[in-house]
Order: sequence, then structure tokens, then C-alpha cells
Amino acid sequence: MGLDGVRALVFDVFGTIVDWRNGIAREAAPFLKRHGSDGDPADFADAWRRRYDPAMEAVRCGLRPFVRLDVLHRQNLEDVLPEFGVNVSDVPDSELADLNLAWHRLDAWPDAVAGLARLKARYIIAPLSNGNVILMLDLAKRSGLPWDAILGAELVRAYKPSPEAYLRTADILAMHPSELCMVAAHNADLVAARSCGLKTAFITRPTEHGTHQTTDLSAERNWCIISSDLDHLADILGA
Amino acid sequence: MGLDGVRALVFDVFGTIVDWRNGIAREAAPFLKRHGSDGDPADFADAWRRRYDPAMEAVRCGLRPFVRLDVLHRQNLEDVLPEFGVNVSDVPDSELADLNLAWHRLDAWPDAVAGLARLKARYIIAPLSNGNVILMLDLAKRSGLPWDAILGAELVRAYKPSPEAYLRTADILAMHPSELCMVAAHNADLVAARSCGLKTAFITRPTEHGTHQTTDLSAERNWCIISSDLDHLADILGA
Repeated sequence: MGLDGVRALVFDVFGTIVDWRNGIAREAAPFLKRHGSDGDPADFADAWRRRYDPAMEAVRCGLRPFVRLDVLHRQNLEDVLPEFGVNVSDVPDSELADLNLAWHRLDAWPDAVAGLARLKARYIIAPLSNGNVILMLDLAKRSGLPWDAILGAELVRAYKPSPEAYLRTADILAMHPSELCMVAAHNADLVAARSCGLKTAFITRPTEHGTHQTTDLSAERNWCIISSDLDHLADILGA
Repeated sequence: MGLDGVRALVFDVFGTIVDWRNGIAREAAPFLKRHGSDGDPADFADAWRRRYDPAMEAVRCGLRPFVRLDVLHRQNLEDVLPEFGVNVSDVPDSELADLNLAWHRLDAWPDAVAGLARLKARYIIAPLSNGNVILMLDLAKRSGLPWDAILGAELVRAYKPSPEAYLRTADILAMHPSELCMVAAHNADLVAARSCGLKTAFITRPTEHGTHQTTDLSAERNWCIISSDLDHLADILGA
């Protein structure tokens, strides 16, 4: 069993490994209440997250130099708070900084730690996330994610789905792209990874966006592997 | 107990965590014999290693752009083999590539894995080595070194003891330099780390250069911590 020639599994993290929506809602709830907002914390999580891809797109297009995701999250936070009735200039910087670190305090999906531990016995495992190194490190320490290394956007100074994000990661690992398998709950991530020559594994995360999720409910291409969670992926790989 | 304010321990690796001299000698011995060299494998390890710092110095001085250590090791290998009677042009490239990977197959000192596991429970632990990411990853997989992340020269595109190597690492961790402690068996590494504001911990490795070692036999400054091995370091830190 196993994917022919694959030596490293690289993982999307937000949505694939950790549950960002419930984590952000949990962290934002007392903040919103304290600052007189009656906005729904889950709506706030969605609104903050909606600004994620456009912010990275400015970097991908070369409109601004690469900055780590913590910086983009902070700018997006200041942009989204007024929509929820919070005047940013009334909030102490330390409170904004702390809320921004909510992304460092997300919980892993229940299958993540055990599944990764099985996969680690057979493969190099590392995040290939748009999150920066200390963000990934804090998530790993919180939940016990047993990564072999922290790879991703900050190392390669490129945001997925730019090809450089995948190709430079393969270069750092001194591997041909086909020796890497991208594991993600998002079809678009796998489209980009496949176009760079990586193998692909889809994981279904049907509640990433809540119970009414409409996107990425199933594999939209014939990915190398289609699995229901990380334990299932480990089963398929014989790990 | 503990170092006031320190959140991350960053480690030198060659000499501090792994025994490069015996590992390189072990890997080189059959190669030298096969190619008709009667050179001593330990002398070969010393000779290869002697070219390490000058090669990095060319990068540090800006005489050449940053390249990862695997590249420097390969060039140094081709330079040193003739000294041991081996004509490089007679050796298949695959054999040179394999011998170059000897640096990826070094063994950890006996106290390393257990000591790091204790320290990991209390601190972020990561290599801050001049070795590149896949080299560090291969060493970690081989011996089970439980790093939280692989940091070091390739991420910051600077070789120790350049200040950038320490300062950019602190920046990646989103920490003030004083929140990092550099752990090394080399006084010179700690001199540079301290000048950048990092805390310092010395580990004695009296046989790194063999039984007749003359350098780094003891702490030459009043480092924050002076310890005999990683277990002792963990004892001192109450980890």
C-alpha cells in the first residue's frame, strides 16, 4: 500500500487540521460582548475569514510584498470590527493583539492527532499552510500535533495557491514534486498542487463552514486519495 | 526554576545534538576503501569539516549568495577528496551524492532524545543550526529528535554567527530575542547569540573532535547556564 514514490505528506491546516470557525467564534464572543456588539460570533468568524483570501491575493499579485499571515489577520480584524459595531480606535492595542492571536488558539479536529501520529511513522509530515511559523507552532503545541517540521507560506514567501508555494516547498525538501502529497479539505488547493506535480489527497470536512456548508462537501476531481478523515487516510495508506 | 521570560530553546546541532565526527568517519570508511584511499576516516571527517566554516564565510561576507549547507558540503567534498588520494572525476555522481548525505545520517548523542523530550514539555524547542531543513529533518527522523519546528539558516538565509541568523529567528517566532535561549557546545555561537540579546546555555561535548579535543572543553564566559548534557540542562531548568 501507499502512494508510489511519496515521501512527504504536506497538509493544509485551516479547515483540514483545525476547526477555525468554532475557535474564532469562541474567542471573539467575550470580546464582542465586552465592546457592546450584539453580532453573532460565528458570523464574525465568517466575516473575518472572508477577508483572508483577498488579503493574500494582493501579495500573490505583487501589489504588496510578502508579509506573514499574522499581519494580514490583524489588518483584516481592524477592517471587520466596524461591521460588528466596534470602533477600533476605542479598543486598546493589547486587546486587538490578543484577539488576533485567536488564530493561534484553534482546536484540532478530533481525528487529527491520532491520524497524524500514524502517518508520521511512515512519512515526513508537515503543514503546508498559509499560516506563519509561530501560528503553526502555537497550534501544534496546543493540540499536540506531531509535525516533523513547520513548512508553509512564510518559508517560501508565497501564498497558496501560487505555484511557488508548492514548488519551493518541494525544493526545501530536496524532493521532486511527485514525492510530495498535498492533503487538504479544499478542492482548489489540490487543483493547484496537482498542477505543480504533487500527489493529492482529499479529506472531507463537511462542517468547516458550519452545518449549512455548501462548498467542498465532496471531491470534485479524481484525486489520488479521497478520504473521510485522517484515520481513514492512514488506513488507505497502510500507515 | 527556569530562565526568566524564555519561551523557546534553540539549539546548535552539529556537535551539540549529534556526533558528526564518528558519523562521517563511519560513512566515509567504505567509500575511501572502495576508491583505494588509505586515509584515516576520522581524519577525513576532520578535513571535510575544516572546510565548513570558510565556505559559510563566503556567504556571510556577501562574496556569494546564500546556498543551503548541502550545496556547500558537496563542494567541500569535491575539494577534500583529492587530499585523500581520490580523483573526483573517477567517482560516479550518485556515489558523491550519497556520501554527501552522510551528514543526514549522523547519530544523536545518547542524552539528546530524552533530554529534548523533557525540555519540550516546557519550551518550544527547535534547531537553530547552519544545516538546511531536509538535513535537520532527516537527522530528526533517524534518531527521533522531537523538535517542535525546524528553524535555522535556510529559513533566515543567513549563517551563524551572523547576527541575522539569531535576530530573524526571533522575528519568525514573534519573540523578543531575550525570550530565546541559544543552547550550544560552542562558546563562539553563544558569544554571537548573546550579542543579539538571546539567553545562553552551554553544553559540554568534550569528545566532539575526538579524544584529543582542545577547544570548547569548558564554558569561557559566564553563560546563563553551564551544563554537562541535555538531561543536566533539563534538571537546571526544572523541566
